[in-house]
Amino acid sequence: MKKILIQLDTDAHPSTFDAIVAHDAGVDELLRYGGIEPDAVRGLVQSAFFTRGPDDLSTLAVWVGGSSVGEGEEVLREVEKAFFGPFRVSAMLDSNGCNTTAATTVARLAREIDLNGRRVVIVGAGAVGLRAAKLLIDEGCDVTVSGIPAARFRDRAYRRAGGLTVAKERGMDIAEPADDEELKQVLDGASLVLAAGPAGVEVLPEAVWRTIDSIEVMADFNAAEPLGIEGTDAQDDLEEHDGKRVLGALAIGGPKMKVHKACVRRLFESNDAILDVDGIYEIAKELA
Amino acid sequence: MKKILIQLDTDAHPSTFDAIVAHDAGVDELLRYGGIEPDAVRGLVQSAFFTRGPDDLSTLAVWVGGSSVGEGEEVLREVEKAFFGPFRVSAMLDSNGCNTTAATTVARLAREIDLNGRRVVIVGAGAVGLRAAKLLIDEGCDVTVSGIPAARFRDRAYRRAGGLTVAKERGMDIAEPADDEELKQVLDGASLVLAAGPAGVEVLPEAVWRTIDSIEVMADFNAAEPLGIEGTDAQDDLEEHDGKRVLGALAIGGPKMKVHKACVRRLFESNDAILDVDGIYEIAKELA
Amino acid sequence: MKKILIQLDTDAHPSTFDAIVAHDAGVDELLRYGGIEPDAVRGLVQSAFFTRGPDDLSTLAVWVGGSSVGEGEEVLREVEKAFFGPFRVSAMLDSNGCNTTAATTVARLAREIDLNGRRVVIVGAGAVGLRAAKLLIDEGCDVTVSGIPAARFRDRAYRRAGGLTVAKERGMDIAEPADDEELKQVLDGASLVLAAGPAGVEVLPEAVWRTIDSIEVMADFNAAEPLGIEGTDAQDDLEEHDGKRVLGALAIGGPKMKVHKACVRRLFESNDAILDVDGIYEIAKELA
Repeated sequence: MKKILIQLDTDAHPSTFDAIVAHDAGVDELLRYGGIEPDAVRGLVQSAFFTRGPDDLSTLAVWVGGSSVGEGEEVLREVEKAFFGPFRVSAMLDSNGCNTTAATTVARLAREIDLNGRRVVIVGAGAVGLRAAKLLIDEGCDVTVSGIPAARFRDRAYRRAGGLTVAKERGMDIAEPADDEELKQVLDGASLVLAAGPAGVEVLPEAVWRTIDSIEVMADFNAAEPLGIEGTDAQDDLEEHDGKRVLGALAIGGPKMKVHKACVRRLFESNDAILDVDGIYEIAKELA
Repeated sequence: MKKILIQLDTDAHPSTFDAIVAHDAGVDELLRYGGIEPDAVRGLVQSAFFTRGPDDLSTLAVWVGGSSVGEGEEVLREVEKAFFGPFRVSAMLDSNGCNTTAATTVARLAREIDLNGRRVVIVGAGAVGLRAAKLLIDEGCDVTVSGIPAARFRDRAYRRAGGLTVAKERGMDIAEPADDEELKQVLDGASLVLAAGPAGVEVLPEAVWRTIDSIEVMADFNAAEPLGIEGTDAQDDLEEHDGKRVLGALAIGGPKMKVHKACVRRLFESNDAILDVDGIYEIAKELA
Repeated sequence: MKKILIQLDTDAHPSTFDAIVAHDAGVDELLRYGGIEPDAVRGLVQSAFFTRGPDDLSTLAVWVGGSSVGEGEEVLREVEKAFFGPFRVSAMLDSNGCNTTAATTVARLAREIDLNGRRVVIVGAGAVGLRAAKLLIDEGCDVTVSGIPAARFRDRAYRRAGGLTVAKERGMDIAEPADDEELKQVLDGASLVLAAGPAGVEVLPEAVWRTIDSIEVMADFNAAEPLGIEGTDAQDDLEEHDGKRVLGALAIGGPKMKVHKACVRRLFESNDAILDVDGIYEIAKELA
């Protein structure tokens, strides 16, 4: 029986990346959908249930992707709401690569350093940053999610991250530094710092991070220039810069791809895996 | 040479059900199209003709699906109009499962009882009901297609079935009972009754069907609660209720799936099969 | 590793023809996109780069198709603009079959006659005609691209071909005959004439071409009635008509299909082939 993945993508054109990696992970057939809105989900998912017996539902799975993590989360909720009785299939969310990126990065850090009790600042409150924050809190870190000083946005219009509000609602500590001086105060005492700003924004200038003695490790989610952490390299794989080890975004590219494929394969091992941030982190830790 | 099925679906997102069953029936590649309007059909079908020689056209076929039977019928007409000379491919219509459901149900009844000369009332004049009516007339039944008393629609707005008009145009006997008392009169003398109302409408209350002594067998196209026939079970496979045998919608689920797959395979045995209600019924009778 | 072709089609529904031929040419998986606008291209192409290592990029390729050659050309430009560093994949443009048709026809003529120094008139300045003109100029022909006399458009509204302007911009000789008498003057002295008008327009009446003694060979891109060259047959494979050899559109159908498939296979032999008119012509000449 062919392994069939239903690719629900919230963008108009479903991702080539997710499709190719699915094939490379052993999926036999992809049913690809673009422009998915939440109200289309129930019909597409429930129709799939009645094609094969309840005992064969592990041969079907749902993938949720697209560039908007918020829309993806809504779609995943609808996928789960479509389940009833024995009728359910495994599903995974990785809109914008948010979960595989956050999980692989934290798993890589957890292998390298003891996370428990560590003070962490995550600068930038986008979807990847919030997911990393959640995982680090679960690992026993003392996490602060920090906004990005307005001046860091250069010629871009300042967009106040709604993510800080979300972080607060989830009970996380937040900080809203107005400028680099205030950012330094937020960072003071942190041993682990993650740069999780939007693409194109340098969130940590050298003049800031070099002055913070407490920092031991920094990780950057940004792969393209300008990087999130000035003066580092996207390929840094815990290379030292001024005594601080740096994990660049490209250094986790290989492990992230392994995690991604392992997750897709896991979808077809049962019909009840929901691979959101926690499930993906478990797999990332096994592979790290 | 790969067996390729062109899935023309009138819904915005092409059906997962039809796609998965096509793969399970041995189709190698699906070319899936959603939001198909009649004027897009000719180009898509004729383009396919010129890819392989006329001798290999049985390796290509067209599937017409979607939730609207009326739109599907229009699309199938356009598919047939696109044929010319030796250039034609097999095609099947099963929008909303109408044909496989009607054909499998009637074939199941034909195996169980002698249909010839039997008086039948079909309550509800949707696409499945009208297809069942057609097949039963061909089997020698004396069929009346009946509307549903307005009160049966409970809190739903009453939608007068345009299907009754269609049935009349096709020369079928119709009835339009105003209430359950009139419905009883319509049913009186019928030995076979089919509940073919829309999902969510109980068309035959126990208080009605229990009083009609002539009824021997009842079939219900509704699989979800509330069932079309009160006091029965969707799993009933000619189980007796008050001396009447009942065929529930779920009881034909397995046979319907077999018919569906056999039909898809049949599409690739020649390049000139048009599987609408009659062609599908022939296959259903072979399998029943 | 599966060979995956990303089908970017500028029509709302991606071509069945291109999809089926791609499968027949050995592509393992197609990622099919309809309604492609130029600004969607970069994301779809670049996302694909990061799925497999730079050494494996020859297992991925891009196909550009659809009924509008102009839109296809814009999409191909965007595909090439998405490349950076080692990140590129092979790509092919064949919107409306323009390149495989022009290349196969000219390659067939080049095998049959010595093109060098020959005077050629191409009547009609559509996408296929302009591509043929380009190839013939490269083969050393003295080419004139001619408009079509208004009267030839019968009951159709006369559409002045923007193609003549394009031909002029590209430094080609053009002619704009007002009627058949002027067309005869344009044709006088030509030994090779190509009918490249739009479908449904007879561009060369017998009364015109029979009077031009210099014509030795005529080719017609039109496969459907009325043909572009009156009094010939679409199946003519250099059959003589009044002492002139005629190459009909259907005669190149078989070779065109071979060229098409060879091109698709070529896409997967490296990651840097751009198969537009020249690249496709090279392959057509190898096969002719």
